[in-house]
Amino acid sequence: MATKIGIVGMGLIGGSLGLALKQRTNHTVIGIDCDSAVIDAVLSSGAADKTGVQHLNQADLVIIALSPDATVDFLNENAANLRPGTIVTDVCGVKRQIMKHCVPLCWERGLHFVGGHPMAGRERSGFANADACLFEGAYYIFTPPKGTPEHVVNLLKQVAMQIGCTGVTVTTPEHHDKMIAFTSQLPHVLAGAYVKSPNCPEHSGFSAGSYRDVSRVATVDETLWSQLFLLNKDNLCFEIDNLISNLKQYRDAVDAGNTQLIAEILSDGRGRKENFG
Amino acid sequence: MATKIGIVGMGLIGGSLGLALKQRTNHTVIGIDCDSAVIDAVLSSGAADKTGVQHLNQADLVIIALSPDATVDFLNENAANLRPGTIVTDVCGVKRQIMKHCVPLCWERGLHFVGGHPMAGRERSGFANADACLFEGAYYIFTPPKGTPEHVVNLLKQVAMQIGCTGVTVTTPEHHDKMIAFTSQLPHVLAGAYVKSPNCPEHSGFSAGSYRDVSRVATVDETLWSQLFLLNKDNLCFEIDNLISNLKQYRDAVDAGNTQLIAEILSDGRGRKENFG
Repeated sequence: MATKIGIVGMGLIGGSLGLALKQRTNHTVIGIDCDSAVIDAVLSSGAADKTGVQHLNQADLVIIALSPDATVDFLNENAANLRPGTIVTDVCGVKRQIMKHCVPLCWERGLHFVGGHPMAGRERSGFANADACLFEGAYYIFTPPKGTPEHVVNLLKQVAMQIGCTGVTVTTPEHHDKMIAFTSQLPHVLAGAYVKSPNCPEHSGFSAGSYRDVSRVATVDETLWSQLFLLNKDNLCFEIDNLISNLKQYRDAVDAGNTQLIAEILSDGRGRKENFG
Repeated sequence: MATKIGIVGMGLIGGSLGLALKQRTNHTVIGIDCDSAVIDAVLSSGAADKTGVQHLNQADLVIIALSPDATVDFLNENAANLRPGTIVTDVCGVKRQIMKHCVPLCWERGLHFVGGHPMAGRERSGFANADACLFEGAYYIFTPPKGTPEHVVNLLKQVAMQIGCTGVTVTTPEHHDKMIAFTSQLPHVLAGAYVKSPNCPEHSGFSAGSYRDVSRVATVDETLWSQLFLLNKDNLCFEIDNLISNLKQYRDAVDAGNTQLIAEILSDGRGRKENFG
């Protein structure tokens, strides 16, 4: 069934959603962005059929693809203009704080808010880096509040699969934030901490895949990610502390020259990677 | 000019060297391995022209593709059977200890020993994972002792480029070991430390490229890598300590809820990645 989908914020994620929806489905896309140059690019590349916030009252589904602060601000200002029954979702990398603000805000206006997080990204942001294939092979996580009607979650799942996702995970905001601190936030912390080695400036000619892999996401957007880190402070601090304590195990075994202990620690790591994938 | 090249140890690196040399050059390859099943596979896949340690006295170049301990043991037992003037190199991931043992051992028999380290690898070892394209895009690092004749280094550089390397780095064993602790050993420590998070078993459905990248080399061979870590203890401990101290910066800024400080720390990391590549 063709649906009218509003996308608010045509950056990397919103822009990729627009491109994927227009290239892979027959849904109508209303693309919103506060930057008129972005809107020009969106319309000329076919990432949306039309633009203008006044069209959002026609939408069956509104995907807010903004940072956490801006997501809440947008809903505060625009929820009253959406049709009751409209499904609203976000794409933020944290879910507890988003749900806390957006669920009641939507509820009182008869809108269905479901937290969303497509597990896809690039080292660079903005519509210029948007890609219709961004979601290929990715999981899309949804955190519906209790009592969300089945058709709401089903529509979101369907759209996620239509844009190329490999699977959908439905979970609580609490579990999402705990897992994301490990799978996404910690690697972003790590990448930055890693390239701060005094030997990093000379890596060229001495580095290969391992350097590239660990350092890749150090180009993170600091304005967005400082927000995301703070909104998941407890889980992120737990993961950093845990990693530091694990690193100390290796350090102490190497420093003590204990070959057998090093081999055991390495073997434990290998076993986990083999088991957990 | 066609050269006779002996490869001792037809595992991932030795096997890939054999395949690359036979597919891309007209050099003759003598492949040596203590496992007769591996030798059968080597000969049937065309990774060597012939086998048998007795042929090594015809070689112009012998590449020992074994672990550090086994490299020194092999030279102790076989250096006397090589022709004076033969160039000998290894592929170990550490260079100070290798040079310390192998240079005098070769010198007294009229052999030219040059430390070597092709910056290529895979998550899995053994000839079954060997690949003629393994060295494509990789750097090959050489650590020639002082006084090494120019033709020796030139032949090694030529072979490195012939097997597909993107460049050759010539440096001291000290500088090699310092850089490799950062570019290669630390990411291997990190991968193992990372997958030891109590949340790792549940990552499926919540993970994407960042998880894959950081955890990739956790499948490290513990027997080889515990040796490599110990032979580079000072540099590796320095890098782990440095990383822990950098991670603490992020942790403390997040824990303090200091958005500006987090953004500054992230921005510093981004700047370094953008500058250093």
